[in-house]
Amino acid sequence: MALAAAIHRKAAELGKSAVRMTAKAGSGHPSSGLSLAHIVTYLMYRQMRYDPADPWHPTADRLVLSEGHAVPIVYAALADLGATVGRSRNGASRLTPHELDQLRARDSVLDGHPNPAEGVPFFDAATGSLGQGLSVAAGLAAAARLDGSDRRVYVLVGDGESREGQIWEAADFIAERGLNNVCAIFNANGHGQAGPVSPQQSTKHLLAKLKAFGWKAVEIDGHDPQAIARAFRPVGKSAQPVAIVARTVKGWGVAQLQAGNWHGKPLSESELAEAGASLDQAVAGVEPDGRLPAPPKPPAAAEAKRQDPLSVVWPSFGEAMEAAGLGPMLARGKLATRRAYGAALRTAGELIPQVVVLDGDVSNSTFSEMFAAAFPDRFFECKIAEQNMVSAAAGLSAAGFIPFVNSFAKFLSRAADQIEMANISRANLKLVGSHAGISLAADGPSQMGLLDVPFFRAFGTVRGDDRESPLCWLFHPADAVAAYHCTRLMLEQPGMCYMRTHRPDMPLLYDPQTRFEPGGFQVLVGGDDLAIVTAGYMVHVALETAALLAEQKVRAAVIDAYALPIDGQRLTDALQRAGGHALVVEDNYGGGLGSAVAEVAARVGSLRVATLCCQRIPKSTRSAEEILEYCGVGPAQIADHALALLKWPR
Amino acid sequence: MALAAAIHRKAAELGKSAVRMTAKAGSGHPSSGLSLAHIVTYLMYRQMRYDPADPWHPTADRLVLSEGHAVPIVYAALADLGATVGRSRNGASRLTPHELDQLRARDSVLDGHPNPAEGVPFFDAATGSLGQGLSVAAGLAAAARLDGSDRRVYVLVGDGESREGQIWEAADFIAERGLNNVCAIFNANGHGQAGPVSPQQSTKHLLAKLKAFGWKAVEIDGHDPQAIARAFRPVGKSAQPVAIVARTVKGWGVAQLQAGNWHGKPLSESELAEAGASLDQAVAGVEPDGRLPAPPKPPAAAEAKRQDPLSVVWPSFGEAMEAAGLGPMLARGKLATRRAYGAALRTAGELIPQVVVLDGDVSNSTFSEMFAAAFPDRFFECKIAEQNMVSAAAGLSAAGFIPFVNSFAKFLSRAADQIEMANISRANLKLVGSHAGISLAADGPSQMGLLDVPFFRAFGTVRGDDRESPLCWLFHPADAVAAYHCTRLMLEQPGMCYMRTHRPDMPLLYDPQTRFEPGGFQVLVGGDDLAIVTAGYMVHVALETAALLAEQKVRAAVIDAYALPIDGQRLTDALQRAGGHALVVEDNYGGGLGSAVAEVAARVGSLRVATLCCQRIPKSTRSAEEILEYCGVGPAQIADHALALLKWPR
Repeated sequence: MALAAAIHRKAAELGKSAVRMTAKAGSGHPSSGLSLAHIVTYLMYRQMRYDPADPWHPTADRLVLSEGHAVPIVYAALADLGATVGRSRNGASRLTPHELDQLRARDSVLDGHPNPAEGVPFFDAATGSLGQGLSVAAGLAAAARLDGSDRRVYVLVGDGESREGQIWEAADFIAERGLNNVCAIFNANGHGQAGPVSPQQSTKHLLAKLKAFGWKAVEIDGHDPQAIARAFRPVGKSAQPVAIVARTVKGWGVAQLQAGNWHGKPLSESELAEAGASLDQAVAGVEPDGRLPAPPKPPAAAEAKRQDPLSVVWPSFGEAMEAAGLGPMLARGKLATRRAYGAALRTAGELIPQVVVLDGDVSNSTFSEMFAAAFPDRFFECKIAEQNMVSAAAGLSAAGFIPFVNSFAKFLSRAADQIEMANISRANLKLVGSHAGISLAADGPSQMGLLDVPFFRAFGTVRGDDRESPLCWLFHPADAVAAYHCTRLMLEQPGMCYMRTHRPDMPLLYDPQTRFEPGGFQVLVGGDDLAIVTAGYMVHVALETAALLAEQKVRAAVIDAYALPIDGQRLTDALQRAGGHALVVEDNYGGGLGSAVAEVAARVGSLRVATLCCQRIPKSTRSAEEILEYCGVGPAQIADHALALLKWPR
Repeated sequence: MALAAAIHRKAAELGKSAVRMTAKAGSGHPSSGLSLAHIVTYLMYRQMRYDPADPWHPTADRLVLSEGHAVPIVYAALADLGATVGRSRNGASRLTPHELDQLRARDSVLDGHPNPAEGVPFFDAATGSLGQGLSVAAGLAAAARLDGSDRRVYVLVGDGESREGQIWEAADFIAERGLNNVCAIFNANGHGQAGPVSPQQSTKHLLAKLKAFGWKAVEIDGHDPQAIARAFRPVGKSAQPVAIVARTVKGWGVAQLQAGNWHGKPLSESELAEAGASLDQAVAGVEPDGRLPAPPKPPAAAEAKRQDPLSVVWPSFGEAMEAAGLGPMLARGKLATRRAYGAALRTAGELIPQVVVLDGDVSNSTFSEMFAAAFPDRFFECKIAEQNMVSAAAGLSAAGFIPFVNSFAKFLSRAADQIEMANISRANLKLVGSHAGISLAADGPSQMGLLDVPFFRAFGTVRGDDRESPLCWLFHPADAVAAYHCTRLMLEQPGMCYMRTHRPDMPLLYDPQTRFEPGGFQVLVGGDDLAIVTAGYMVHVALETAALLAEQKVRAAVIDAYALPIDGQRLTDALQRAGGHALVVEDNYGGGLGSAVAEVAARVGSLRVATLCCQRIPKSTRSAEEILEYCGVGPAQIADHALALLKWPR
């Protein structure tokens, strides 16, 4: 059968190319790529409806390579198809077979693992940290539904990789939502890096698991073009998502790569001839003139609703709170940052149609439920599965949506690796962690966000691609007004932003008109003995401290550092006005605001800064006052540190 | 049947107690506890073989409460049984019903979620961040096998919680190893926090999934004592691990707690009488004199092999490398820190019988394979599932083992939340992340550990319970000698330690006899113009930089800061000797060493410190030199920053 012959010959041809480029690079994973040779060939030449020349086409089918290390075989196909590469439309070019020899080179778009940000827009997300691709595919598929597009999303998952729990979080999400525009192919070559794949990941177990999770699953020979063709037929037609468990051979067609452990090892250039002969042997006798036509064209593009976040006019704080039904609380003068955020999110939903919201079964704590009530179609209840939630959001972002990802700050840490991968993809994620710090008290440390500030601040120390703005902005509002405006700032800043909110309802500190900006801070109280620098809930505690110090004739300024990274020059001036002494106070572990201020001061070399963070692992207490004191950051304790700082010998 | 009646009445009694203590506390989750009333009663009064008065008994059966928020029902049983509580044997006491009213109070051992470290040794690990308990149980069960004990481990998992992928990572691990000493009970009450549990977590789906994962699974009525009794019978007899999917009622017996969403909401004290009456009603007609005898006694204790890490004598560096077969490489003068670590791990295995090693399918990259080859029974190949690996290690630690947990530094971040929960449990984990920083070059950012230093350093800013040593030590060796000695230091320090190792084989910098210590650093080159402070791979780069600066008559000291937190006083002295100027250089994102040095300097107020970290997201390059330059931390670039620092205006 002519098609089968053409697939066979093309698979061998792409295999040669994958073996050659990894040999030239001196590293890479030819054996994993070879196990996918036929599946990738069938997908990219016959199954996917797309135009290799237009990777940005809005409704074209997509391929997510979850086992990112197998990418050379895909690069081989892209070069053969003359696919467009480049970081953006301007400056884009056709990939040539010659460029494959530049795999993994500094100036090549062909990174060691898929990464659209380095210039291969055929991919939607960076992969390589395993187990995340099915979630990205879920996000892309959900986005297609929202846009009313017939796009289908194919995802290649390794058998060893399917040990990652996130794969099963994604399997639940996709089945639950009936996303039958997803097709997952499990590459069962039976070999991991350090040894054989576990029997728990055998084709038998994978099939049983996928069926138990509600998928339509079949097992095939992954090197048989006709079996592959048959397996793809139900995609988009079956009510269930389709899973294909493909038995494959690691190092298919190249005898040298099959003996012993060749995971992640390339051949030497001197071995290329032998490998080529081996691949020729593998397709010997296959009719020679099997040609492949161009891939089928993408479906007609639907008209997607998008709005530039910088072009919209926001209502006033009061109007937004009123619209969200928070008027009465506001009148009582106390409002939690998490509540004001919920109202801001609802406002954002009205103004910007591509804003979508994800939550992990805590929308009645994060108050993303305010958005859910107003825009149920754009709200994704991801249940208790934070890893899938973040990677699915990265998929939604790749499709042009602006996802707000919500959970307790503590539980977002569950997705630390997924958050970093989203940053490598330059995803436009807005993450919001509630119940941050220790002020929730009674529930204890298993519910408290204590490492979120150092974690997200670390991304803020890296510059984004424009080499000016940071890779991530961190916002830490002290009151409802600040929370409202910081939500708007998150939308106005491209790329990742993180905001931490707090549980308690607290008094308002700011005039609704107050201007907030990335990198900014507010001097709430002036003073020339020292400055207490803090953020969020602790601003209220610092104000108490300043009052205590005033009784002792110490004039302490209080600075609300609501954004990181902080404007170093402005901060230096403010600290100099405050006597050149600063005490930085946090309700979390160190490495965050205190470190940021210390780095600013240490450059100047004449300011003196003391940092005071959570002194010990918190436990349950019945009040915020008790837990602050227990952790060494109560008003009186902060005052003692301030007085000690003033007594330091020069 | 008398037993059933006794279980029924006790369940109602414990239910009243759970409702009362949460009302007194003003917070907590009575409704979740009530759904477990009969199962907890049967487990703790009839099924578990243990002595409530001796929670430290080495072979007694254990209970892991994965859905930690349901803990009040367990506290109620512990008080009724007069269980021993306290942080250690000295100072331990019997829990009284009266103390239940202190739930969540500052000075109470009864934290809002289970935490042995706060004084409830009935539990082995802190829970409350969901989805981790089954992995902890896996570690406890694996430990029992190593100790030759007949201990059985019961774990209570919520249905909503079973959406977490980690549950399925643990299900694979337990089934693969045939740990039939584990019994998992899924509490299918059908309600999460924000709404009903997904159909994907229905009893039907849970049963099918558990069977597909290789478990012996049955569905029962979780409020029927006889059904519970029958379901437990195969535990320890069946070849497969046993899973019980129990249909339960959230808020069982208390009508008020069943209408509407009562998740995490206590009743008011004024409602207690009505709730009590409702629970009496639930057991009305049950024969009144059903008494429960004491729980069955634990099996005889096996003799566990343990050795005090401080009591052993380590061979010399050379002997250890020789024994590990690294002699020839050593003779060539170059050895990667990860290889020396592998040899050190093998040595530790010989000296200390309770050292166990876990790896996630990369043992041939982390070189934990050297331990695996020598001690296969104490090596756990956890496959590609880092979350389960870390929580299982926490379980092994609770049973008295010292687990070394290995993966790429990047992939350990997958378990950020599990690592924090292990710290809340005060687990004795030693984590080692290989391929840290950017020096692996070709594989690109998806494989690089760029946030590990700020993450683990954050724990180091918190003091441990002894209020002296930090909660976590971070070690960052620059050569094979340092890696060998730092591995020993990890064993000698109680609690969590993290070491980052690097891929490249590098020249040795240290005499094998060199003394290394927690908090220490080494001045490798003296200089009085400025100090370049760095660690790990970058020490070699800093030495190149110092040579470049010497050509320009700038005398730069080079300081290898191999441990965090760093000794601030000693560092201050060293920096003053180096002209009071320091440039801190890192091959990762900020918030780590640079912040630590800046905080020391900012306290002094007369030192000047510049920090230089990875300036942008890395990509693939073919050499370490290229990626250093790409990220702005090449020798010449560091030299430029050093010269700029010396020119700063005062």
